[in-house]
Amino acid sequence: MQIILLSGGSGKRLWPLSNDVRSKQFVKIFSDDGENFESMLQRVFKQIRRNFSDVSITVSTSRAQKKIIKKYIDSGVEISAEPCRRNTFPAIALTAAFLRDAKNISVDEEIIICPIDPYVEDDYFSTFKTMAELVKTSAANLILLGINPTYPSEKYGYIIPASKDFISEVLEFKEKPDVSTAEKYIERGGLWNGGVFACKLSYLLEKSREILRTDSHAELLKNYSELPNTSFDYAVSEHEKNIKVVRYFGEWKDVGTWNTLTDVMREKSIGKVQFDSTCENSHVVNETDLPIIAMGLKNIVVAASADGILVADKTQSALMKSLVEKIHEPIRFAEKSWGVYQVVDADEDSLTIKVFLEAGARMRYHSHERREEIWTVIEGKGKIVLDGEIKFVNVGDVIKISAEVKHTVIAETKMKLIEVQIGKDITVEDKILWEDLL
Amino acid sequence: MQIILLSGGSGKRLWPLSNDVRSKQFVKIFSDDGENFESMLQRVFKQIRRNFSDVSITVSTSRAQKKIIKKYIDSGVEISAEPCRRNTFPAIALTAAFLRDAKNISVDEEIIICPIDPYVEDDYFSTFKTMAELVKTSAANLILLGINPTYPSEKYGYIIPASKDFISEVLEFKEKPDVSTAEKYIERGGLWNGGVFACKLSYLLEKSREILRTDSHAELLKNYSELPNTSFDYAVSEHEKNIKVVRYFGEWKDVGTWNTLTDVMREKSIGKVQFDSTCENSHVVNETDLPIIAMGLKNIVVAASADGILVADKTQSALMKSLVEKIHEPIRFAEKSWGVYQVVDADEDSLTIKVFLEAGARMRYHSHERREEIWTVIEGKGKIVLDGEIKFVNVGDVIKISAEVKHTVIAETKMKLIEVQIGKDITVEDKILWEDLL
Repeated sequence: MQIILLSGGSGKRLWPLSNDVRSKQFVKIFSDDGENFESMLQRVFKQIRRNFSDVSITVSTSRAQKKIIKKYIDSGVEISAEPCRRNTFPAIALTAAFLRDAKNISVDEEIIICPIDPYVEDDYFSTFKTMAELVKTSAANLILLGINPTYPSEKYGYIIPASKDFISEVLEFKEKPDVSTAEKYIERGGLWNGGVFACKLSYLLEKSREILRTDSHAELLKNYSELPNTSFDYAVSEHEKNIKVVRYFGEWKDVGTWNTLTDVMREKSIGKVQFDSTCENSHVVNETDLPIIAMGLKNIVVAASADGILVADKTQSALMKSLVEKIHEPIRFAEKSWGVYQVVDADEDSLTIKVFLEAGARMRYHSHERREEIWTVIEGKGKIVLDGEIKFVNVGDVIKISAEVKHTVIAETKMKLIEVQIGKDITVEDKILWEDLL
Repeated sequence: MQIILLSGGSGKRLWPLSNDVRSKQFVKIFSDDGENFESMLQRVFKQIRRNFSDVSITVSTSRAQKKIIKKYIDSGVEISAEPCRRNTFPAIALTAAFLRDAKNISVDEEIIICPIDPYVEDDYFSTFKTMAELVKTSAANLILLGINPTYPSEKYGYIIPASKDFISEVLEFKEKPDVSTAEKYIERGGLWNGGVFACKLSYLLEKSREILRTDSHAELLKNYSELPNTSFDYAVSEHEKNIKVVRYFGEWKDVGTWNTLTDVMREKSIGKVQFDSTCENSHVVNETDLPIIAMGLKNIVVAASADGILVADKTQSALMKSLVEKIHEPIRFAEKSWGVYQVVDADEDSLTIKVFLEAGARMRYHSHERREEIWTVIEGKGKIVLDGEIKFVNVGDVIKISAEVKHTVIAETKMKLIEVQIGKDITVEDKILWEDLL
């Protein structure tokens, strides 16, 4: 059995903790002890490993996320990286081809496809076993997971089953309805579509050939940007006659908004926060090192990061997208394969950045055309390469890197740098990569 | 006629915009046009100058505030600086002695003493003229300004007058009452004590001799730390039999809390802020360069500065003192005679600061024992002095200042520096001042 986890792209609905380069599944917000926080990605991996002694996991994601996922999940995971973002059907087809062509997985193997970011209890994964079993033993081509709805939500698509049995044929799919229509669906036994599918690998490859005209990994990769931007539901599920749905009755939450996310937070705050005694049902997530004082708040979420500060009524926060889109600031926090960078000051012709490098990490060898940089080592030690010349650096060392000088840093221990960039039109695009020398 | 403005000390009730080194009267929050903001100090000075063609103003304040006040108010103001903070009586006695001994003011001159931070309309200052006239023409030793109360406040002391006339004898003073007592005072014609006094200079000197055993400026200065920490009301007004009160019916607000301050703000926000359409009676003051999004807020104040973030129900915000006192962070924003500094990153053994210098400004010549500093010029030009050696610096220049090296910067144009401090136990106290060489 193979599990394919779909790791989606950028999200604005958890701003300022998610941004164009940081997806919500990487936000560290879950804790068992109130001290060590883990992301949705880490939580889901732990759950899968707890429930399956022997399962292969492949994450279908973008190239940008590949290194970050490798950093979070140290081993035992394959990554199928899209050259650019498409919808779920091309991503799944690419991953299916990857499993056969690159990983030699038998086309008879059962595949479970599911999103990487649902907040669920462990019994959700038990349902996967039932689904895999049905793939093996029933005549159905495709098995879906239907979530027993707890209220007539307008936010989800519905699956209308033929019966109210635990396992049922599927009558039809319904788009996100209004509340009264949702109520009618629920009366008919309607289930939320949680985006979980089970089938054989061969089925995915067959659909790829049918719809994309090929099931070759190399060809799909090559033409990826031209593939149709279509969802698996739309391209496959809705046309499949030989299809069943398995009911799931446990807890399931789409924690894609602050309202739902704070609902599953164990702690009412993360980071430096003080509440007065009159706050009610309010949460503060503080990634900055500024102290936050919260007083007299009712049903409010406060979230602060290097990118900005949200203060919102929880229900209202779901509608933030249009406001976030009006912000045209450079991204101030980004996770990289080698560590993290955070803008600490932005001025007209300068940008000051704090760089955190993991022990052993290295930046790619690069240069800039329109800016010079001054690096000051404030913690740790390592090597700096400047136009091929190696310098060993330690706390307090200052390195001036003129425009066009190729440079990199290789951290021996965990390192922190303050980097002052000076120039006109400072952008992340002003970066030329060079072949590594060391 | 002389006006003495009492400029009080540090305040925590407007945290995070006021702090131990930044008093509320310097917070720039008032605007006529929504673009140029001025502080309470600037507003009051403008009002006084509009109302009096010929008046001398002396600010009674701490040594720490002296240079900041000079920076805000470019000319026409004298400063009487206390060596350390005492209550209003010693401060007023010191200023009275300063006026006679240092400024040769006649002891017969009328003096008006008032706090620097009331939010009032111009007619408040017209009342000063009546008070000064009474000092000159009536037999009273001391004239008070009584504010016509608009509600039975528990926050102010009350003056009970003998009659409801515009000018009246004073029957007694009352401490801050509870609401029902306040109602009784108001029925008796009671007035809020706004802390405004008028008398002759000779009266202040006489009280100084009586209570402090001297009216000599030199002696008061010398023994200042040993003077009693007592208020003018307590030491003088409450014992004076020959005293009158003048009624003031205009607008008067003590804008010492976020609730009252936002009440007089013309704009609902300052800085980078977006509101959604469902916010009501909410204000955001954003001094940081992080964008803030506010959604669905009702009666909330949000204030963000380099020192922290407040999110509070407006009424509740008045009670923040105990929460602010629990924050033990180094101050991250401070106004200096030469400009402003702002901490942009604080780490275990390093501190990164952005320094703004005015054109022509200079730091005092100083050194540090336990830290080195790396300065990078990101804007402007000037001179740096290192152990007596002068270097001309420009954008992009980097200066490394080892521990114990004496240094200063003299800005030729407006300048900005990024300063990385590296060392154990970085504190503002680690600073040795040296005599200026240039």
